[in-house]
Amino acid sequence: MNKFDLNSYLSSKRKQIDNALGVIIENYSKDSKIKTAMEYSLMSSGKRLRPILCIAAAETVGSHLDDTMRAACAIEMIHTYSLIHDDLPAMDNDNLRRGQPTCHIQFDEATAILAGDALLTLAFEILSSVESADKDHAFNRLRAIHTIAMAAGCKGMIEGQMQDIAAEGNVLGLEDLKKMHRLKTGALIEASVIAGTILVNGNRDQIKKLKNYARNIGLAFQITDDILNVEGDPDIMGKDVGTDQARGKSTYPSILGMEKSKIFVKKLVNDALKVLDYFDNKADPLRAIAHYIVDRNK
Amino acid sequence: MNKFDLNSYLSSKRKQIDNALGVIIENYSKDSKIKTAMEYSLMSSGKRLRPILCIAAAETVGSHLDDTMRAACAIEMIHTYSLIHDDLPAMDNDNLRRGQPTCHIQFDEATAILAGDALLTLAFEILSSVESADKDHAFNRLRAIHTIAMAAGCKGMIEGQMQDIAAEGNVLGLEDLKKMHRLKTGALIEASVIAGTILVNGNRDQIKKLKNYARNIGLAFQITDDILNVEGDPDIMGKDVGTDQARGKSTYPSILGMEKSKIFVKKLVNDALKVLDYFDNKADPLRAIAHYIVDRNK
Repeated sequence: MNKFDLNSYLSSKRKQIDNALGVIIENYSKDSKIKTAMEYSLMSSGKRLRPILCIAAAETVGSHLDDTMRAACAIEMIHTYSLIHDDLPAMDNDNLRRGQPTCHIQFDEATAILAGDALLTLAFEILSSVESADKDHAFNRLRAIHTIAMAAGCKGMIEGQMQDIAAEGNVLGLEDLKKMHRLKTGALIEASVIAGTILVNGNRDQIKKLKNYARNIGLAFQITDDILNVEGDPDIMGKDVGTDQARGKSTYPSILGMEKSKIFVKKLVNDALKVLDYFDNKADPLRAIAHYIVDRNK
Repeated sequence: MNKFDLNSYLSSKRKQIDNALGVIIENYSKDSKIKTAMEYSLMSSGKRLRPILCIAAAETVGSHLDDTMRAACAIEMIHTYSLIHDDLPAMDNDNLRRGQPTCHIQFDEATAILAGDALLTLAFEILSSVESADKDHAFNRLRAIHTIAMAAGCKGMIEGQMQDIAAEGNVLGLEDLKKMHRLKTGALIEASVIAGTILVNGNRDQIKKLKNYARNIGLAFQITDDILNVEGDPDIMGKDVGTDQARGKSTYPSILGMEKSKIFVKKLVNDALKVLDYFDNKADPLRAIAHYIVDRNK
């Protein structure tokens, strides 16, 4: 471990991201029920892991631009929309999220569906916003949009959610579980890092390395989620625990056992750290985040 | 009316659009339940009005490019996603669409929600696809994405759907009804025309004129929908009629009366045609479409 102070890094980034998200909601929507619902879910206290990864990747490779923050916010909006829709009665039917009633409980189902749709759409509106884009930069913007859309879509996150629903009550093999996680949570985590790198004009090698880093921590993140669903404190986490077992969901702890799951997470984090050897100390935030992913309690 | 043969124009464009949509679904998704559901709703026999408008606007102003077809397809995907979500039990709870069971009836609610999400996301994946984009063209692509996202989002189509749901059972004034229609269906119709124009590098005047055209036919289209919901033949339309009245929805016929509604539609079409005087005979498809919008029986 190095002397880099992750806690102050995370809290300063979170504040910047929350501010930027607040400005976006204020400027890009008008007062209405849909805005209230979007704001309710988006501005609840999330970890902001994906936008922080986007920014930290950009800072590893180049200098931070307005574009990076815009992409970071767009990714958080996409993440939030996916939570709103996953929580719906027709899907996971969850009542609690980030320590507060889920969107369809707080409002109603129709509003929750539309608030999710609106956040997804707003993400692309932000990503394509051209007020400040010079023409040279437009090509990278398109590449970033494409990366994010691919990760969020029917070959990424959405397919992962489909597989997750289909798997409920069935016992999965380890490979199927890994594949499902890679789609459901891994794809957008990878896209966060890649989009951040593209937007500061990162080269092919840098993108490849950081993608590899993201793949490892993405899976580590998901397994840690599985572990916290068994061992976590619901008051700290702001959501129920024990739900995976109650639903008969296959998880790493249920397949590998708790001990082996924890060992596997450590291996993934070490692999992620090894990839970062390619970069200088500007990658320290990414290094510290890799540790944080497994040490977190929520 | 001119000698332009609209029927063969529409059927040839529909065939091209259907082919392009088929190729996109084939190339951009992998075999899975979500793909089957996306394909089911997307490839059903729609009018393809929005993509045809996108192409016809592009042809009015410049020469047709691959980009135009891509944008046309993306807009049809966004339109289809909005239908899938609007039909859900939590919203309009419709069983029939385009002559076949709605997506959640054919599959299930979770699949319908995710298929809608996936079509919306795929639209932006297609729009940002960079394989063929040269760098000069990227800036216009971004502008088109932004136009479409704005129209589809929480200040456009989604806000319109929210207002539509809120209005059910209440009597609306004419101005509120017009505003709701403008958002719910008008915004995406306008965006179709504007995106087509932007992508062939249309200038500010051309965009302004065509936007004005689209605004008029967009409202005319919606009022005609209201009229067909009273007078239409469900077998021809492939959906139920009389549903607006049954739900206590305010419509142009219910507020203005049938006769005045028909007169208003004709005025809107005439206004749209007048705007097109600015263009030469390359605007003939748009002229013919303005007539078609009011003369259609489905």
